Amino acid sequence: VDRPIELRSDNAAGVAPEILAAVVAAGEGSALAYGGDEWTDRLQRRARDVFEHDRARVFPVVTGTAANALALSAMCPPWGAVLCHDTAHVLRSECGATSMFGGGAVLRGLRGHSSKLWPASLEAAFADTRWDDPHHSQPRVLSLTCPTDRGAVYSVAELAAVASTARGRGLSVHLDGARLANAVAALGCSPAELTWRAGVDVVSLGATKNGALSTDAIVSFDDHVSEELVYRTKRAGHVASKMRFQSVQLDAYLTDTLWLRLARTANDAMAIIAAALREAQSRGAGVELLGDPDANMAFVRLPAGTAHRLEQAGVHCYEMGDDVVRLVTSFQTSEPDARDAVQRIVTALG
Amino acid sequence: VDRPIELRSDNAAGVAPEILAAVVAAGEGSALAYGGDEWTDRLQRRARDVFEHDRARVFPVVTGTAANALALSAMCPPWGAVLCHDTAHVLRSECGATSMFGGGAVLRGLRGHSSKLWPASLEAAFADTRWDDPHHSQPRVLSLTCPTDRGAVYSVAELAAVASTARGRGLSVHLDGARLANAVAALGCSPAELTWRAGVDVVSLGATKNGALSTDAIVSFDDHVSEELVYRTKRAGHVASKMRFQSVQLDAYLTDTLWLRLARTANDAMAIIAAALREAQSRGAGVELLGDPDANMAFVRLPAGTAHRLEQAGVHCYEMGDDVVRLVTSFQTSEPDARDAVQRIVTALG
Amino acid sequence: VDRPIELRSDNAAGVAPEILAAVVAAGEGSALAYGGDEWTDRLQRRARDVFEHDRARVFPVVTGTAANALALSAMCPPWGAVLCHDTAHVLRSECGATSMFGGGAVLRGLRGHSSKLWPASLEAAFADTRWDDPHHSQPRVLSLTCPTDRGAVYSVAELAAVASTARGRGLSVHLDGARLANAVAALGCSPAELTWRAGVDVVSLGATKNGALSTDAIVSFDDHVSEELVYRTKRAGHVASKMRFQSVQLDAYLTDTLWLRLARTANDAMAIIAAALREAQSRGAGVELLGDPDANMAFVRLPAGTAHRLEQAGVHCYEMGDDVVRLVTSFQTSEPDARDAVQRIVTALG
Amino acid sequence: VDRPIELRSDNAAGVAPEILAAVVAAGEGSALAYGGDEWTDRLQRRARDVFEHDRARVFPVVTGTAANALALSAMCPPWGAVLCHDTAHVLRSECGATSMFGGGAVLRGLRGHSSKLWPASLEAAFADTRWDDPHHSQPRVLSLTCPTDRGAVYSVAELAAVASTARGRGLSVHLDGARLANAVAALGCSPAELTWRAGVDVVSLGATKNGALSTDAIVSFDDHVSEELVYRTKRAGHVASKMRFQSVQLDAYLTDTLWLRLARTANDAMAIIAAALREAQSRGAGVELLGDPDANMAFVRLPAGTAHRLEQAGVHCYEMGDDVVRLVTSFQTSEPDARDAVQRIVTALG
Repeated sequence: VDRPIELRSDNAAGVAPEILAAVVAAGEGSALAYGGDEWTDRLQRRARDVFEHDRARVFPVVTGTAANALALSAMCPPWGAVLCHDTAHVLRSECGATSMFGGGAVLRGLRGHSSKLWPASLEAAFADTRWDDPHHSQPRVLSLTCPTDRGAVYSVAELAAVASTARGRGLSVHLDGARLANAVAALGCSPAELTWRAGVDVVSLGATKNGALSTDAIVSFDDHVSEELVYRTKRAGHVASKMRFQSVQLDAYLTDTLWLRLARTANDAMAIIAAALREAQSRGAGVELLGDPDANMAFVRLPAGTAHRLEQAGVHCYEMGDDVVRLVTSFQTSEPDARDAVQRIVTALG
Repeated sequence: VDRPIELRSDNAAGVAPEILAAVVAAGEGSALAYGGDEWTDRLQRRARDVFEHDRARVFPVVTGTAANALALSAMCPPWGAVLCHDTAHVLRSECGATSMFGGGAVLRGLRGHSSKLWPASLEAAFADTRWDDPHHSQPRVLSLTCPTDRGAVYSVAELAAVASTARGRGLSVHLDGARLANAVAALGCSPAELTWRAGVDVVSLGATKNGALSTDAIVSFDDHVSEELVYRTKRAGHVASKMRFQSVQLDAYLTDTLWLRLARTANDAMAIIAAALREAQSRGAGVELLGDPDANMAFVRLPAGTAHRLEQAGVHCYEMGDDVVRLVTSFQTSEPDARDAVQRIVTALG
Repeated sequence: VDRPIELRSDNAAGVAPEILAAVVAAGEGSALAYGGDEWTDRLQRRARDVFEHDRARVFPVVTGTAANALALSAMCPPWGAVLCHDTAHVLRSECGATSMFGGGAVLRGLRGHSSKLWPASLEAAFADTRWDDPHHSQPRVLSLTCPTDRGAVYSVAELAAVASTARGRGLSVHLDGARLANAVAALGCSPAELTWRAGVDVVSLGATKNGALSTDAIVSFDDHVSEELVYRTKRAGHVASKMRFQSVQLDAYLTDTLWLRLARTANDAMAIIAAALREAQSRGAGVELLGDPDANMAFVRLPAGTAHRLEQAGVHCYEMGDDVVRLVTSFQTSEPDARDAVQRIVTALG
Repeated sequence: VDRPIELRSDNAAGVAPEILAAVVAAGEGSALAYGGDEWTDRLQRRARDVFEHDRARVFPVVTGTAANALALSAMCPPWGAVLCHDTAHVLRSECGATSMFGGGAVLRGLRGHSSKLWPASLEAAFADTRWDDPHHSQPRVLSLTCPTDRGAVYSVAELAAVASTARGRGLSVHLDGARLANAVAALGCSPAELTWRAGVDVVSLGATKNGALSTDAIVSFDDHVSEELVYRTKRAGHVASKMRFQSVQLDAYLTDTLWLRLARTANDAMAIIAAALREAQSRGAGVELLGDPDANMAFVRLPAGTAHRLEQAGVHCYEMGDDVVRLVTSFQTSEPDARDAVQRIVTALG
């Protein structure tokens, strides 16, 4: 059998060598616990530099769920509602974490084409809100995901437009950036342009899916939220005693655009695969590309049996049901891997 | 200036080489996320072997606070009370984590000499409880800490006695084992003897303070608690996507008694320091050893100004106020380090 | 201007004379607080008799929101999901109470025609559930509403069928009976038939909308839930010190079918109004009756301006937006009131 | 046997005739639900007048536990601590309500002689606080109780002094006024003097123990807390649909100093009983008056067997254990009742 090609998820990948090396280097000598160390200091400066925001604060946490739910709990009153897309990870794949950390705050899923939220999505939700009626959970936060859980990337203008609609009604804006590097790399914009300059107050910054060993982070541009997070991360058990080993990963990640280079590898591999799938679709091979694989993730409906043949051919992908598979490339998916995967897919399609 | 000697905390130490090597080795290739990997499987088997309990389950989490608060939230109803010692970390140093994860469950601090709880401590608390009165938080869980937050180690018989008193009133028993390895090494008992055989249902197993890179764990001997923890760890953001890197640390930690060997180094170093402090105390040097440094931690009252001189002499320790300092040795405190520290302490005492 | 006719809500009505008399009578002499009184004892016996269930327990609470959210919090683990209809009060009008009392449990709104849930509604939800996946809130409770928030009444067979589908997947079943008397009166069934015999574990029993002064109640047929509620009602501040004044209301309410007689008055009045609306609709008066006014509540789309004219004519109703009004009759809506309202509606339609 | 005299608790009493009459009168006609009625409007004006504060807001709730826990949850961040006396009802008799509504906020009991907190009590607590350390629950609110749970009344100056110490460290101040009327009546001060003029931000205003049928209230002098309470009371199920029946009770209670007149009756009765107990103590009858019965509550240690003889003689009191009984007078304890009780107590002492 051929060498397997891992396309189930980017979090099945290993660790980027630059990040592993940084961890090993930080292990020499002792350091104050709970973030009172030089690596965490350096990370704070790095983040301010990379995001071009002089009061940005970074809170390393161990998962995207922790980043999302803690950020949202600090942004939303317990009697409020967080608006998000119907497909959002916070709504569908975090087992109520936001309601738990948020003291009963609720998530309200909205529809929006292309797996994105649009100004009109929010306006419809606002029209269906009984404002100032205490029987009704009051919308206080908008949570966007970019790339979306279906792999699409908001343009800077799209994201700014929906954020602006939210802010117009007094909502603050959270960005689930589990794959933020992939979005920034795909758009070619600056991190600031896709975040605070577009109206985002707090970002969940993914790193684990893109080469880190064991850390994601919250990046807050809002002083009040930052103050809350000092305590909220601690009581959630997310302030690691040896935080330096998370900080050094994030610092390496953000240094010299490593995060964007890693993401670009993943995006480029997906572009190769998506092009092949589109070509197969146009020649009537029974393939249907669902949504917009703008970054490193594609959803494809395959002819019955194809997924099974793919698996046998060593292409690991995630079966979603109804003959739909999810393909995700990572920083470890080289161009030859992508071409190899395409070859095996074409074969499996018969 | 001399080479610094780190005695502020064992969590200021680095990573044990065996553990770092295991992490590096696990980084090759891809693996299913969220614990669906071979390292996590192996860890489960290892823990059952080490604890001699065939239904034990391990849940890697990133901090001791997470281990404690999640375990207690799974053990205690939200209207219940967790009894613990007045000096317990869960009560004094976790910012209400148990009440948050526990949906309003409360902690009730009890007194007990030598920083331990005794059957009589519990009996006094029970006498002051309005049982079955819904106005009054009902005791449902006992949380013990061993070694205690003052460095003392319960004997197996002491721990079993207080656990038995708790169980007699229907309480279940949690053990905060942030430094469990140090206790087991100090007692020379088996892990089973100090845990489930002594009446403990769930253990918070520390690893980070004793050589791990970024992980602690919950070890549950109770099936119902285990089932709860599957969901509770997830929604707390403590199920890491790349869990294998936590599992591999814990597996290495528990393999071939590495954890006990690391702990023994720390304990031996403390024994040297404690002996010197006792000697200084007996010759009237103004030193007062507080409590029982049974494992790797001592609390000492020093003559005014001594702490400052120690710091200048490169002996890093933690000032508690009132001229009391805490000294903690770690797996990195070698015997020469300990003797060197003693030398500098003697000099600082003048 | 004519005497106003109150059709905004049944909770705008006053107090039934039998209930007020009972309250006044209970006010003589002193009594033990917190339910340790004879009226509360008598209520427990009454409820067991009326519901034909010898372990039923009643917990008086001050609102339907308290009844619903406390019951659900006792039935659902904090990592679980409560399934309910998209229009359910628990989802839309309780400001997240269930998530708050439930420690982060979430509500998941489902669709179902005629404002009811059907076996197929549940089966679709179950198919869209990742069972045993801790990332996904696990369905554990079904909450039904009868009459629904759109005024329809499940038949006993309909309710039993959907409850059975839920129980088949291990869910327990809650019934929001804010207007349970109206449903039982409309169906002519026994209270047992529409509740525990149909598979319902816990009922929120409305009384305030149907003549009580200041109380609703939870009726639990499940011993474990009852035990939980002893503590959960207390810590929610819902165990009144002078509980006897709630208990005596509920006891009078359930005595000699008073609750059903009061409900029948409301239902009969609505039947008169609904018949007139149907007649107007059939003769093309621009009226559209939405849903099924099976009990004491109707939703009607009126020609533009009609609602305003109705208000001027002293018919108070609740404007829902989009020219839809809600009409609710109460135990105080006499037959002449209903005929009078019909007259004014016909006039307003022009 | 003699007519029983009720001294177990003031919440065992019935309803003041003026309040019952007001409830009955409000029952005629219909009214908007959830506080949109004229009685609730009038109550708001009344409270502003009585408390001489033009932005005071009143939130009727059904119990003192609800008042306390909801107020504290609106005042304290979920990572904060509420400081209170060791004997406080919020700490000992509310089953964790504050931690539940407060999303994990904790209560920290302090010592203070005469069952009161003093500036020195707070200063000791502050010295034992690791300020700004996220591992440690940060004190954010002081909760005082007046009269205390042992029956003592702070002077205005005492209360203002401890409130001032709290405010100096940035804490806000809550007053558990379950028996506020008794304190104000005992002191002869104005309600404003004992509350906001003394530095109190939010008051739990008891009414049920002093003649109301079924309501207590929160009185907030802080706009931010008021805004929070609009939503927090609702989602706690404490916004009654027929709120007018609570509002009318509170309005009658506060009108023409009814509340103070009712309290004075209770206080005067206790003064008679306390004088007799003091006299018995001084003549060596084996009685020991514990604490200061400044208002309507006394704690007394009696010779063995006396409590039983008292019960047989129809004097109902609450046995606390260790031969201590609690005696509480109410608005229904007339002067003859008090003298009669004294007679029976003297007889029981033998």
